[in-house]
Amino acid sequence: MNRSFDKCRSVLITGASRGLGLQIVKDLVRRKDSPARVIATARHPTAAKELQDLSKTHSGVHIISLDVISQASIDAAVQEVTMLVGEDGLNCLINNAAIGIPTDLESVTAEAMMKTFESNTVAPLMVTKAFLPLLRVAAAQGSGMGIDRAAVVNISSILGSIQLNWGAGAAFKSYGYRTSKATLNMVTRCLATDLGTDGILCMALHPGWVRTDMGGPLADLSVEESITSVLAVIAGLTEKDHGEYRDYAGKPLPW
Amino acid sequence: MNRSFDKCRSVLITGASRGLGLQIVKDLVRRKDSPARVIATARHPTAAKELQDLSKTHSGVHIISLDVISQASIDAAVQEVTMLVGEDGLNCLINNAAIGIPTDLESVTAEAMMKTFESNTVAPLMVTKAFLPLLRVAAAQGSGMGIDRAAVVNISSILGSIQLNWGAGAAFKSYGYRTSKATLNMVTRCLATDLGTDGILCMALHPGWVRTDMGGPLADLSVEESITSVLAVIAGLTEKDHGEYRDYAGKPLPW
Repeated sequence: MNRSFDKCRSVLITGASRGLGLQIVKDLVRRKDSPARVIATARHPTAAKELQDLSKTHSGVHIISLDVISQASIDAAVQEVTMLVGEDGLNCLINNAAIGIPTDLESVTAEAMMKTFESNTVAPLMVTKAFLPLLRVAAAQGSGMGIDRAAVVNISSILGSIQLNWGAGAAFKSYGYRTSKATLNMVTRCLATDLGTDGILCMALHPGWVRTDMGGPLADLSVEESITSVLAVIAGLTEKDHGEYRDYAGKPLPW
Repeated sequence: MNRSFDKCRSVLITGASRGLGLQIVKDLVRRKDSPARVIATARHPTAAKELQDLSKTHSGVHIISLDVISQASIDAAVQEVTMLVGEDGLNCLINNAAIGIPTDLESVTAEAMMKTFESNTVAPLMVTKAFLPLLRVAAAQGSGMGIDRAAVVNISSILGSIQLNWGAGAAFKSYGYRTSKATLNMVTRCLATDLGTDGILCMALHPGWVRTDMGGPLADLSVEESITSVLAVIAGLTEKDHGEYRDYAGKPLPW
């Protein structure tokens, strides 16, 4: 199995100012097989100090302003990326931006549910839809399925598994986060059906429980460990992963 | 297995002005084992002609105004129902109200996704949360699990099955409806974990593809056929159904 970014000319990562998104950018630019263009988006690029520093030392890093819940912002980002990638199109879109609001039975409100759904489910759908023309341009230049051609990777979570949300697996209570990731899985599955004929791979990926601001200090994995595995899975994506839900080791998860 | 409403004193159905909701009310009041109180809610009760007629001929039917996406309306409905059921509490809550907006890849918008999620996922959660005190009052008076004690039935759909949304099962395209029902399943699973210790059963139920305004004229089942089966499943609910996702024949569906 190919586990390289050799033939992947461009990767776009949303929510790249910190946490997993930032680590993906760091790892990608340090690789020998680094894609020519690593497009890092952030809601507030000027405040993204580490991204700014990376872009100074790595010419392949492009920082683009993107607030994923604003259609105007999405449209502007597509225009910028179109100028950047030109006739190559976009090979890999990683929908990583997400929020987490504490929402157990006591604290959950309609507003918190809506906000989480908007950022974690609707935004990846609308971002993917907006970047489809660029993904199709890339897909038209390749064969098979994977990042050599065109792929959409939705960063999901094991917390979005409805089946595993039971017994010990239900210990973490969050109506907002769990529902938003379960629906991101459904969106992934819908997109896979719609985009498969264009040769665009779509899948949902659980990065592990990671010591980020969101995962907290007690989580299993360091950010580095998670992203090393996540990028190995992404590099090795094939048609077998299309429409699937996998963890950072590439293992299938139950819906 | 008990398949009767004999010991179920009250059932509340949201979205009861037409379609499946109205049929549930009709069937319940015609049964020999009819619950003492069949509480039918509708957004615009005065416009719900058939419900009004039923309430004239059947003293057990109570029509209550409820706009499921308005917290103020939910709170007012809880007050009314509290007066109505008194110390009996509420035995069975059927979250049936739902909307459908055409949302294939071309037509889907963030707004349509949000509206569908608000009505089909968030509303059942907020309605259930608001009626919990009444469900707990009923649950405290029984043992085991089922409608003899306290149960929340979320009317889901096979279209909410992420696993079945593939190949032939993916023919019906609707980002909004599919995601809203997948997350209703997740909400059901979260609620089941949280309410099980109170003795309140929670499950998700697919009523079949039914010839309603939403299902269209080509659907498999008449409204009568669907609801006969749906009420048989509800009447027979036991702890084995807690946290599960079943069709109108009682068969388990994959998440």
